[in-house]
Amino acid sequence: MTERTTGPGTGLAEAGAVLAREAARFASFGWMRGTSGNLSVVTNRDPLRLAVTASGLDKGELTATDVVLVDAAGQAVSGGRPSAEAALHARVVRLTGAGAVVHVHTIASVAVAERCPEGIVFRDLEMLKGIGRPTHAGEVVLPVIGNSQDMAVLGDRLEAARDPDMPAVVVAGHGLYVWGADPRQARHHTEVVEWMLQLHLARR
Amino acid sequence: MTERTTGPGTGLAEAGAVLAREAARFASFGWMRGTSGNLSVVTNRDPLRLAVTASGLDKGELTATDVVLVDAAGQAVSGGRPSAEAALHARVVRLTGAGAVVHVHTIASVAVAERCPEGIVFRDLEMLKGIGRPTHAGEVVLPVIGNSQDMAVLGDRLEAARDPDMPAVVVAGHGLYVWGADPRQARHHTEVVEWMLQLHLARR
Amino acid sequence: MTERTTGPGTGLAEAGAVLAREAARFASFGWMRGTSGNLSVVTNRDPLRLAVTASGLDKGELTATDVVLVDAAGQAVSGGRPSAEAALHARVVRLTGAGAVVHVHTIASVAVAERCPEGIVFRDLEMLKGIGRPTHAGEVVLPVIGNSQDMAVLGDRLEAARDPDMPAVVVAGHGLYVWGADPRQARHHTEVVEWMLQLHLARR
Amino acid sequence: MTERTTGPGTGLAEAGAVLAREAARFASFGWMRGTSGNLSVVTNRDPLRLAVTASGLDKGELTATDVVLVDAAGQAVSGGRPSAEAALHARVVRLTGAGAVVHVHTIASVAVAERCPEGIVFRDLEMLKGIGRPTHAGEVVLPVIGNSQDMAVLGDRLEAARDPDMPAVVVAGHGLYVWGADPRQARHHTEVVEWMLQLHLARR
Repeated sequence: MTERTTGPGTGLAEAGAVLAREAARFASFGWMRGTSGNLSVVTNRDPLRLAVTASGLDKGELTATDVVLVDAAGQAVSGGRPSAEAALHARVVRLTGAGAVVHVHTIASVAVAERCPEGIVFRDLEMLKGIGRPTHAGEVVLPVIGNSQDMAVLGDRLEAARDPDMPAVVVAGHGLYVWGADPRQARHHTEVVEWMLQLHLARR
Repeated sequence: MTERTTGPGTGLAEAGAVLAREAARFASFGWMRGTSGNLSVVTNRDPLRLAVTASGLDKGELTATDVVLVDAAGQAVSGGRPSAEAALHARVVRLTGAGAVVHVHTIASVAVAERCPEGIVFRDLEMLKGIGRPTHAGEVVLPVIGNSQDMAVLGDRLEAARDPDMPAVVVAGHGLYVWGADPRQARHHTEVVEWMLQLHLARR
Repeated sequence: MTERTTGPGTGLAEAGAVLAREAARFASFGWMRGTSGNLSVVTNRDPLRLAVTASGLDKGELTATDVVLVDAAGQAVSGGRPSAEAALHARVVRLTGAGAVVHVHTIASVAVAERCPEGIVFRDLEMLKGIGRPTHAGEVVLPVIGNSQDMAVLGDRLEAARDPDMPAVVVAGHGLYVWGADPRQARHHTEVVEWMLQLHLARR
Repeated sequence: MTERTTGPGTGLAEAGAVLAREAARFASFGWMRGTSGNLSVVTNRDPLRLAVTASGLDKGELTATDVVLVDAAGQAVSGGRPSAEAALHARVVRLTGAGAVVHVHTIASVAVAERCPEGIVFRDLEMLKGIGRPTHAGEVVLPVIGNSQDMAVLGDRLEAARDPDMPAVVVAGHGLYVWGADPRQARHHTEVVEWMLQLHLARR
């Protein structure tokens, strides 16, 4: 079996170090308060393996070992007990081909989704180029899906709602899922989407 | 007499180091402006002893020795003069069994309590899991109590208003009291409650 | 002649180091954008001498030598050219007996003063204790005065408007002047006043 | 040929180090989210040469070598591929004689430009002195121009709209262009303009 790898390499500790660094960054922005949110990176494509941040820890204080390796169903292969949300990370990767997934609890995402439960429309923003869209593409919609504690249900909603040209979905009352080819692109997509959400709030 | 200990250990300096670190964190968020707020951790259960941050100091610059040991009534056992609010910390611990108490002056807590003097209602938020509540628990209420300079009065109000499933109370015109099993859980409860209060403000 | 000294000592470099540290702190909060604002500390009472931060420099990058010694009229005694506002610092010290003065350009002070040009009223806030007022003192007023480029005019307005129990004045369209017994107390007074102004904004 | 130089010197690496430091500062404020924005400094006047930050990188993580040297048309002379916006930087320098240009994506600039598409009026603000204007100059207008992906079009709009006494222009749906004699003055102009924009937002 040939293993194709993406992201920071196949080493779990190496992946854990990258995720810890990215998590500390998002935590410093206030996007992972409490112990909320989780990040993942694909370490192997066939069979699919993702390194996912460990559950229940402060996301500003992770170390390289605070990581769990999961399979395509989000079940632990090694490391500790993954968050239930690991299954959604794995599903996003299977659906989109992404190499990294960011899940953060931002106030702007929840507040704007309350105003726009049918989806959040952006238009005429240079920042759209940061998610690969032309600035003058007309309306671009960030989908909003209902929250659920059942990851299969949540995954079905994400699959039904997602736009192939928009690397993000808002879960109502919950937060953002964003993805990219690797952890750095996922970071930048997250920042761009959150910037547009904060602009939406600033408009009131 | 057998001493059961929680938190960072029975050493007062050790407790002081933990509280200094936590205080610096909250101060960096702007939640302890001036010299406001105070933190405590239980160092012994029987007899009850709490380490409480010293009064009148900048909460971003505490050292391990800027701490006072108080008894179940909030009276100093060793160290300097405690804040009058130490008595309320001790009462919260006796009422709730908590191992650590956070008192911070956040703008969101005061602003939202002015709008919702009868209590602040949250519902359908994933963040509720961060204080041990199911996301879809129906309405969850953060109690608001009137301020007082008399800690016995304030304690009575807290006792009458508190919800056993909500590890926090807002004191109107004043700030937040939040508690948890240990300093880290108290930190995470504080962050979760403040996140929900900031969301409330963002909704306007 | 006997010199009574307050603050960090009579050494200008020592005073400069304290002011640089305080300025870096305020700059990190965004209260000294551009090169705005200036800080001072009394180094001698008779004759009056104040160390004042040098003009035209980034307030986040000051060193211990970026300081000017001025007299009771705000004229340079040693060091470089002081800001014109040094004269107002000196006048505040003469009027109030303060040992340190903070002048910062905060957005909240300018925005709230536009809404409340006759003075900003605070009541029933625990934070009032941070400026030495009882929480339930009734109404406490932060004076607002009109801006001027003439420091004698501005000083007259400050003298006419100031409340002996309120260690701060807002200059409309400009920013905050706050004072205290020493640089640390002036810092804490500044933080408390700004906290109350930000609360005012959050109420909308 | 005699070369007149401004800014940090003719060395490209030296210019790159300055730009990396300035970019990290702006990124820490959240003004360069994703990989947005770019900074430049003139390294030679005749022929005109600008060092411009490299495209597609995280602006908080630039190093001294993440820089491209471009000519008066914004075409690369050495280094990698410049952003298309390098041509606008070069044009600003030719139009204004500036030694450094800052382009950042701030939320306030986009939000306020939506409300004031004909230009943003400031008056009676002490902060105006930070861009060389008297405080009581009457109305001062920050021009707003329509966005375009064609740098010649955008440059024509900037040339037609700019006010010689205002070292900044807002591009609608996009962000701020600000300039100054050198990177430090450009930084301070940027901070002053952004402060006034944030005040505008706070007024609602």
